Amino acid sequence: MEFSSKLLENAVYEVSQLPGIGKRTALRLVLHLLRQPKDQTNKLSFALQNLRNEIKYCANCHNISDRDICEICANPKRDDSLVCVVEDVRDVMAIENTSQFKGKYHVLGGKISPMDGIGPHDLNIPTLVNKVKSGVVKEVIFALSSTMEGDTTNFYIYKQIEPYNITTSTIARGIAIGDELEYADEITLGRSILNRIPFENSLKSS
Amino acid sequence: MEFSSKLLENAVYEVSQLPGIGKRTALRLVLHLLRQPKDQTNKLSFALQNLRNEIKYCANCHNISDRDICEICANPKRDDSLVCVVEDVRDVMAIENTSQFKGKYHVLGGKISPMDGIGPHDLNIPTLVNKVKSGVVKEVIFALSSTMEGDTTNFYIYKQIEPYNITTSTIARGIAIGDELEYADEITLGRSILNRIPFENSLKSS
Repeated sequence: MEFSSKLLENAVYEVSQLPGIGKRTALRLVLHLLRQPKDQTNKLSFALQNLRNEIKYCANCHNISDRDICEICANPKRDDSLVCVVEDVRDVMAIENTSQFKGKYHVLGGKISPMDGIGPHDLNIPTLVNKVKSGVVKEVIFALSSTMEGDTTNFYIYKQIEPYNITTSTIARGIAIGDELEYADEITLGRSILNRIPFENSLKSS
Repeated sequence: MEFSSKLLENAVYEVSQLPGIGKRTALRLVLHLLRQPKDQTNKLSFALQNLRNEIKYCANCHNISDRDICEICANPKRDDSLVCVVEDVRDVMAIENTSQFKGKYHVLGGKISPMDGIGPHDLNIPTLVNKVKSGVVKEVIFALSSTMEGDTTNFYIYKQIEPYNITTSTIARGIAIGDELEYADEITLGRSILNRIPFENSLKSS
């Protein structure tokens, strides 16, 4: 692409560094900003810089937070003894939206993935082990995605906290509510039969 | 969406103001920036602000430029008497990439579109008419997209410059090179038969 302006070329280059955004999309976005009031570009730049420079991670659960301890960890009504292990802040948001979980979180910041060069030491695992060691935690719930990386990470953490004799669980896998059986994949359907639950329990959750 | 941080919420909101980017995509992009060095976010913000605050539009053709007169208009080798009318800077880039056009451009900045509240007075039409009036221009080539808005804009401009008795043309519409006839739409195929060219001419252009 040949640009008539260095400023334009530079802006397009920087926007196209974002994941999933190519040069053409970047050009479209940048030209859109040029058609809008200057204020919009300033607000966008400011919001991004502010976020990147001011953001904190909760000292307890590593969730993104404006303060040293996030709102969830600071809430005395939430159960310290129940810890849900998730990959990143999006998973915290997803589980919070269900209003079904009253414990606390532990954000790993990723999954063990040798292909991407991410080992156990790149994740927030030691602080989780320390929490378990301290004796406050009674149950750890694994809520990572069920991929090879997720399973590896679960197993690694499981091995680390096994000596402390606490309950460990993973979130239930099965047919999503509203899905048709005939379209479900075999592994999911197979697991949902193996891990069937008493019918009375299904009445409670609805 | 419930955010654990106001900074995060604000950044996601501003990014989701861009066209075609929803809240989820915005969150993904913003979390990506958080995982990258601070430098990347600063460069991005800077490039956008610089562009928005420093950009100039060529006084002659309204193309985006770093200077008062763009490189194309300042180039003495380009033909003043041939003016190609386009919608925006992307069209200039597309035509420049072909290396087939040696005249100058006139960027309208949009198309007449009553549905979007864009009338002739919102576009750079008077400067084009002045150029024609001055007597330098011998031919105006319309290179707007062939939509209802494009055709309306072409016709409006045509009526404005008609009294000055210059040549007007539009870019050829037809089957794209490499395309199969059987998959072409009827209107395009019909036009490409009506506007057929001498076979010898097709040999020259390849």
